[in-house]
Amino acid sequence: MTEGDFLAALRRLPLHPAARGLRDDAARLFHAPLVVTTDTLVEGVHFLATDTPGDVAWKVVATNLSDIAGKGAKPDGILLNYPLRDDDWDRAFLVGLGEVLAACGTALLGGDTVTLPAGAPRIITVTAFGCDTPAPPRGGAGENDALWVTGTIGDAGAGLAIARGADGPAALAQRYRRPIPRLAEGRVLSRIAHAMMDVSDGLLIDAARMGAASGLAVIVDLAAVPLSADYRAHAGDDRAARLDAASAGDDYELLFAMPANTVPPVASTHLGRFARGTGLRLFDGDASLPLPERLGFEHLA
Amino acid sequence: MTEGDFLAALRRLPLHPAARGLRDDAARLFHAPLVVTTDTLVEGVHFLATDTPGDVAWKVVATNLSDIAGKGAKPDGILLNYPLRDDDWDRAFLVGLGEVLAACGTALLGGDTVTLPAGAPRIITVTAFGCDTPAPPRGGAGENDALWVTGTIGDAGAGLAIARGADGPAALAQRYRRPIPRLAEGRVLSRIAHAMMDVSDGLLIDAARMGAASGLAVIVDLAAVPLSADYRAHAGDDRAARLDAASAGDDYELLFAMPANTVPPVASTHLGRFARGTGLRLFDGDASLPLPERLGFEHLA
Repeated sequence: MTEGDFLAALRRLPLHPAARGLRDDAARLFHAPLVVTTDTLVEGVHFLATDTPGDVAWKVVATNLSDIAGKGAKPDGILLNYPLRDDDWDRAFLVGLGEVLAACGTALLGGDTVTLPAGAPRIITVTAFGCDTPAPPRGGAGENDALWVTGTIGDAGAGLAIARGADGPAALAQRYRRPIPRLAEGRVLSRIAHAMMDVSDGLLIDAARMGAASGLAVIVDLAAVPLSADYRAHAGDDRAARLDAASAGDDYELLFAMPANTVPPVASTHLGRFARGTGLRLFDGDASLPLPERLGFEHLA
Repeated sequence: MTEGDFLAALRRLPLHPAARGLRDDAARLFHAPLVVTTDTLVEGVHFLATDTPGDVAWKVVATNLSDIAGKGAKPDGILLNYPLRDDDWDRAFLVGLGEVLAACGTALLGGDTVTLPAGAPRIITVTAFGCDTPAPPRGGAGENDALWVTGTIGDAGAGLAIARGADGPAALAQRYRRPIPRLAEGRVLSRIAHAMMDVSDGLLIDAARMGAASGLAVIVDLAAVPLSADYRAHAGDDRAARLDAASAGDDYELLFAMPANTVPPVASTHLGRFARGTGLRLFDGDASLPLPERLGFEHLA
């Protein structure tokens, strides 16, 4: 597909008014304040070469909108940096892009297309903008605040193994392929949470990061980690299965801190608390556990 | 370099207050309206594998800020999407990043780091934000408006050949390696230009785009295209040398439309005008010329 053909196809998707029909060098945004976040997905690292283009489009937008959800913002629009390569792949990507923009109620602001040298993996960047939020920080938890999480944990981690060929229910693979950012929950929680972030690299590592950013220790009860019925049926719910779930990535649930003895107004699970000190402390009910070697996904050179 | 080391190094560069010390999932921007633009550079396509990392850092930021200059905006900050690979390269990139942020008076807002599969070319994305501007559009030229351009054209095109090993003055290679976005000129011109854009893909193709966006024909006098003394000494100033200059890319000058008989308040050259009709018409003084096969750089699949 030429750049011109790709732009013509993009113009048939939901376009932000600030995009000026994708006929200018810059978009102009009128909301303030804005939250902005960006994520890059690399073929072979963040998605599989065998993932469908539509699922990749969904994922690169949904992962960014999950950060917007973590700020409790209304998604205003996205920028797309896209490598043109193969007509069929590009066309199927555009279909998935339209699906995720419509599902999440947002629109395209602009972006850039490039060509890649032969054999280079696809690298796709999306930058997302959100407005109308108090934007709870990652580091706002207070001593004795309770730690909560929306939804269930570990489904996408199991789903990744299934997408790679392991046996297991399609519903788990779908949680890996088409995560749904918790935009509505984020809007409600941002007004009352002391700290909030999305769970993208793994529940344990992200909880540790919230504790560190807040200057507090964070205590997580593995027995409280919410598992789906599909996950239990597939992987069980013993300690090992719970550790796997809590250190897998790609959940895109919301992790948040609330005053103790307050019940959040969205479906969620109380799984720990913050205390004076530093670091992550892990329990299984009353039993203190050593930390697993791997708390989640970390980028290394 | 690990992601943590890279982030620690980034924190020693000019950081935007909205970056929250690069310790959160999103930056929060308070200016409105904002202009936003994004560009991706691919190793082997937009920069040479032999370019120094510092020059690549300069270029990826400067090309984005050139779009901000084209909108006449004050540069507010940038996001960086960066692939970690090689410690020495990463460190030298950070030095160049610090240099271009300081030279252009802007700061880092956030971004994302990724790892690449072995052998993948580096793909670097920068997204830039600008504020405080009327943001003249690309398509605002009126019938009989005059077409102007800042600086000189063709230096970076010749400089690219020199960077690839051809003989020629280092000053031209420097114009390719470290373009200087016309931020100050853009600030002044945005208040009075009817249309404005930066010249990134080539003077002729970008003039044609301004004409098309404005619904008008654009007439360019090749004899008026401003050439530097270095370029004339290197490539001459006959018709072929002027056509080469006017269809080379990477100039990062500002192209703008003004009412006829008005002199712009910044150093610039009058090189054409807009008229009823469509398309680009090329003259050399009084002689009408056929269009060259290639007007500039276009992405093709």
